[in-house]
Formats: sequence, structure tokens, C-alpha cells
Amino acid sequence: MKKLSKIIVVPDSFKGGLSSEKFCKIAEKAILDILPEAHVISIPIADGGEGTVDAFLKSVGGKKLNATVKNPFFEDMESFYCLLPDGTALIEMAACSGLPLAKGRENPLVTTTYGVGQLILHAVENGCGRVILAMGGSATNDAGCGMAAALGARFYDRDGNEFIPTGGTLCDIKKIETRELKLKVPVTAMCDIDNPLFGETGAAFVFAPQKGADEKTVRLLDDGLRHFADIIKSELYCDVSDIKGGGAAGGLGAGAVCFLNAELKMGIDVILDAAGFDAHLEEADLVMTGEGKIDTQSLRGKAVIGVAKRAKVKNVPVIAVVGDVGDGIEEAYSLGISGIFSINRVAVPYEKAILRSENDLYLTIENIMRFLRSIGI
Amino acid sequence: MKKLSKIIVVPDSFKGGLSSEKFCKIAEKAILDILPEAHVISIPIADGGEGTVDAFLKSVGGKKLNATVKNPFFEDMESFYCLLPDGTALIEMAACSGLPLAKGRENPLVTTTYGVGQLILHAVENGCGRVILAMGGSATNDAGCGMAAALGARFYDRDGNEFIPTGGTLCDIKKIETRELKLKVPVTAMCDIDNPLFGETGAAFVFAPQKGADEKTVRLLDDGLRHFADIIKSELYCDVSDIKGGGAAGGLGAGAVCFLNAELKMGIDVILDAAGFDAHLEEADLVMTGEGKIDTQSLRGKAVIGVAKRAKVKNVPVIAVVGDVGDGIEEAYSLGISGIFSINRVAVPYEKAILRSENDLYLTIENIMRFLRSIGI
Repeated sequence: MKKLSKIIVVPDSFKGGLSSEKFCKIAEKAILDILPEAHVISIPIADGGEGTVDAFLKSVGGKKLNATVKNPFFEDMESFYCLLPDGTALIEMAACSGLPLAKGRENPLVTTTYGVGQLILHAVENGCGRVILAMGGSATNDAGCGMAAALGARFYDRDGNEFIPTGGTLCDIKKIETRELKLKVPVTAMCDIDNPLFGETGAAFVFAPQKGADEKTVRLLDDGLRHFADIIKSELYCDVSDIKGGGAAGGLGAGAVCFLNAELKMGIDVILDAAGFDAHLEEADLVMTGEGKIDTQSLRGKAVIGVAKRAKVKNVPVIAVVGDVGDGIEEAYSLGISGIFSINRVAVPYEKAILRSENDLYLTIENIMRFLRSIGI
Repeated sequence: MKKLSKIIVVPDSFKGGLSSEKFCKIAEKAILDILPEAHVISIPIADGGEGTVDAFLKSVGGKKLNATVKNPFFEDMESFYCLLPDGTALIEMAACSGLPLAKGRENPLVTTTYGVGQLILHAVENGCGRVILAMGGSATNDAGCGMAAALGARFYDRDGNEFIPTGGTLCDIKKIETRELKLKVPVTAMCDIDNPLFGETGAAFVFAPQKGADEKTVRLLDDGLRHFADIIKSELYCDVSDIKGGGAAGGLGAGAVCFLNAELKMGIDVILDAAGFDAHLEEADLVMTGEGKIDTQSLRGKAVIGVAKRAKVKNVPVIAVVGDVGDGIEEAYSLGISGIFSINRVAVPYEKAILRSENDLYLTIENIMRFLRSIGI
């Protein structure tokens, strides 16, 4: 390994603790305090939920745009999205249909993704050449019908009345008209989950409870999603019933596929591509990633391993700086991680560890840098 | 740094947890599992107390000899010492005068170091050319008078009766005769504490309570040590009242100085010298040390820093693999430590951490080795 001159910092957030932006900021300081000449590239990993726009702005650059659109309850709100340097619009669904926006009145029967469609429309009208749709943290269960409606799709009930379906009224859809829905730009949807649209592992059963649904409501929502899949199949000749990730963001995953012809892609790959990670790797000497806990779960294709796999191809060593190191994670090494370092510097329980995590992270990274410098790297 | 081919493992024990021998065994396995070609030299650091002979045998080699000598209560027992390859005898005072030997009847008023003198005598009669006296873990408070008596010193009370002083009868010494005490070999006493013979920070006040002394007994013992210092000064013209470390092992430190003309030396330096550490350093690529907790205390001349200082002179990088990392230990880096790695892989309290320490130590060292290998070292 040659002297460290270019280091890429590309961490996930520590769930319940440090944000990935905070990790980057601390890592930059720790690295530059020891190696002032180093070139540090920070790519905070967004999880597709709230904060994704800000993370992209930091890692990719671009500009933030505002637009007045509907919130989850069809009320006007000032929302935002960003336009990346290459002309791609990044739409964060949580920016207008996120769960925090429904705080105090969570109800997936009535919430809508209408604002998401409006943001996309705004971006397209502003000349964006492509859309990335960050799906995560939704308050909705409308299978993206609200979004589709804002973009020109029309939904009719059995009496021929047009309406905008929400979670509670998906069952009422009798006919769908999409002639006016013509999105001319390609759409990539960030999706880190495998859940299908409906059923026991579907959007309603798995995610609706945290959006305020009780058991009865969950069944009602699930029925709606099943009906939606049926009607989409018969009306649009599109089968979304088995799509992996169709259940993301209250079925927005399925909706993005059938209405926008979206490609569902791992969030980490979307981010790394947008940030030009592979190009940065060409001259990188070290990649530093991290997450709250590395365990057998994280080895299943999430952020840290996604980073490691790409770095391995280019033969760039990767260190993971993490909160906890789970048992049985030896596979991580063969997947491209060179070293795993916990920030736990004293034996204290999680509640205490979290209070000192920022300082411990700094000291842990600083220590690694000192060590590398001292062994002549 | 060139490829890792020679690694010296020289850890302290983790107090209340791993022994230094266990650390070495685990480290050897972890290193060789990743770098099968590496040459690993293990020097477990003994603390001068129980187990010092075994640690020396492991790190320096030599043979263990048995001898029947007096236990702390003047009863015969089978004890041992070792003869190092260079002809030095290593005497572990705890092997015949240690606190565990007094278990159930601890009483520093009556216990003796007589057996220590017998072991030294045995070693000298067997032709040893030098004596290292490991002081630590004593059950005694006799200022080494028992040891001196075994080696030929004579103590008389005011009635002219000869006796062997113990903690409770030091005050009765009126006259000391050392004509027959002629130890012809140099003695080095391992001593890691600064405590003087008597007074508030002396042997009785600081250490006698853990040897079974109540408050009244402590004062009595302290009076005895003061009297001992006075009589030594007037009879032998030797002032031991202010010697740093004179209070070690119930005043054995002071006794070794005045009766054996011993040199008191930091234990770590005695061990490293005996193990030929400096010579090993010449070709070493890495030194791995460790202890239960690295903190501002450990920076005050104890084992880990003692190791680091020597390695720094030879420009060999040192990593410390520790239980906890205390706050404010940045000075360690300037003293020669290149990197400090905690074995805490999960945020759990000490009681839980200690149960998994062996496995965590293995995984932590294995991870460091993997990392070094992956960056081409």
C-alpha cells in the first residue's frame, strides 16, 4: 500500500446515533489532524428516507429547489427536492409524504403520495433528464396512486366517478386511465427492502403498524393492495404482485414500477453511482466505511458491504469503523472489508456508549490514522 | 514498514481477567492463523507476584527447582524458584511468603519471609551467579528480617536473646549482627511501587489491611517499621527510611537493600532485560503489548509504556491491545505507542465484557493482522 493520500469516507448512519453526515465530518477532522495533506472525499450514505436530499447534496453536490405541493393530507406545504449536477432530480418521498409530516394524525387509510407526483412534475418541467426517487419513511399506503394522479393518471370508481385513491380507498378502483400520464424521463427508485406489495411480508402487514394502523386497518390496507395489484394487471397489463420491493413506502415501489416504469435499485448503488464512487476509487488509497452495528444482517447487501464489494474489485483496502461488531461476521473479510474497528473504547452498556459516540469515533479514527502513519503508510 | 515477519508479543495481564500468558497464547494463535509464516516471540509480563516464576520460564526459559523452606508461619513447605539460562536465580517471594499461603489465617504480625532467605541460600549453594527477587503479593510485614535471618543475620532483643523478628516484634530489635550474612552474588529486586517503608504511604498503612490487619494492628506494624529503620540506621549505618519502594512486600524492599545490598528496579525492565527484549527488537517488525486498561496511570512508567519506550528507540511500531482505553491517553502516542485497540466489540458493561474477553481478544488481534496483511504489510 502506498502512502495515504486519497481517502474516501463513505459511512452509513449509526441507527439511533450518529448521522452519516456527522460521521463524515468527524472522520474528516480526525484524518486531517493526523494527515494534513490527505485528500478526503466524503460520501455520506442516505437510507432513502428523511435527509436523503441533504446527504446527496453533500456527497454529489447540486442545488436544492423548493415547490409547493400537497402534504400527506392533501394540504399545501412548502417542500423541496434537488437537482444533481448531471441534471438528475432527486425526489425524497419523505419530503412531502413522510411519516413525521403526519405526526399526531398518522393514518395510512387517508394519506397520499400526491405531493411526490407534484415534485416529479416540477422537476420535469424544470428540465431534469432523469429522476431518482428515494423511497423511505412514508406515512402512506396508497401504492403510489396519489403520485400517479398528480402526474396525470385517472382513477374511477364503479360509478364512474374520478377520485384519488388512498390506502383506504384502493379497493374502490374500478378503472384506471393513464393516457395523460406520460413521464418522458427514466426513473430509478431507491429500494433497500425485498418486501412484496401485499401479503404477510407486504407493505401493510410489515410497515403499516408503525404508520398508525391497528390490526383491522392492516387487513383493510392489505386487501386494498391486493385489489390494486389485480386492477393494475387487468387494466395496465402490469403484474406487480411479486415484485421484490413492491411493498416499499406503502406500495410506492409497485406504483413506481407500473406507473413510471421505474427501475428498483439498491439505494447504496444509486448513491455510489451518483457520487462517482467507482471513478474516485481509481486513485483512492483507502476507503473508510461504517455503521452502527456490523452483523450478519449487514452482510446481506446493505451499505457497508455494497461499498466493500466495489472497493474489492479495484483492490482498495476498506476499513469499517462501527459501533458494535456482531458475532460471526468473518464473511465480511472475504467480501472486501480489510479491517473492522469498533468505537467502543470502554466496557459500558449501549445507553452510555451512545452518549460518547462522537468523541469515541473521533479518537478511534485518529488512532487508526496514527497507526498507519507510524508504520510508514 | 516491511512485511511482518517477526512480532514480539509482550503483554501485561488484564487485572481480574486474562493472564499475560493467556494473552500470549491467544495472540500467537491469532497472528499465526493469518500470517502462518510469522515468527512470534512471546514475553508475558509478570507483575512480581504469584506466577512470576512461570512467566519467566515462558519468556526467558530456564529450569524450575524445588526446595523445602518455611512458609509464612515457619512451617515447612515445598516451594520453588527458577534458574534462568544465564545462571540467574529468580526467587518469587510469593512462592513461600505469599498471601494465598496464609489463606484463612492472615496475620502480618506473625508471618515471615524466612523461606525467601532459604530459597536464596538454596540458589546460591547451587551456584547461581545473581539473584532476581520478585517482590509482590506478600503475606508479611517483617521488613525482610526473616529472609535476613535465614541468610545469617542475627537479631537480639534488649535481654540479649536472639529471635527472628516478624511484623509484630520488629519493635523488640535492639541489636543486629550481620557478620555471618555474606551474600556473594548481586541481587536485583523487582519493585513497581514507590511506597516508602513507613508512614501514611508506607507498607503498613497501604498494604497491611489487605493482609488481614485492622486499624490498631496497622499502627503497631507501622511503629515496628519505623523502629526497624532507626535500628538499621544506628546498627548498620544504612538509611532506608526514604527509599522509594522500601515499603514493597511488607518492607522486603527496604530489607533487600540493607541486608542484600539489592538494587530496586522496575519489574518491567528486569523482565525485558532477562528476556533479551532489546536484542529481539533489532529484527522485530512489530511489538504487540496490552493491559486491562490503558489510562493516565499506565503512562506513569508501568509495563506497556516501559515496552513502548524501548521499542521507540529502535523505531519498531507498537500496538497496544487493551480492555478499556481511558480518557486523555494521547501522551501514549508520543511515548512510543503507534496504535491502541480496545477488545470491546460490543457495548456491554464490564461484567459481561469480561466473560467474552478471550474470544474478543482473539478476534481483535486477528482483525488487526488481517488489516495489516490486506494493506500489503
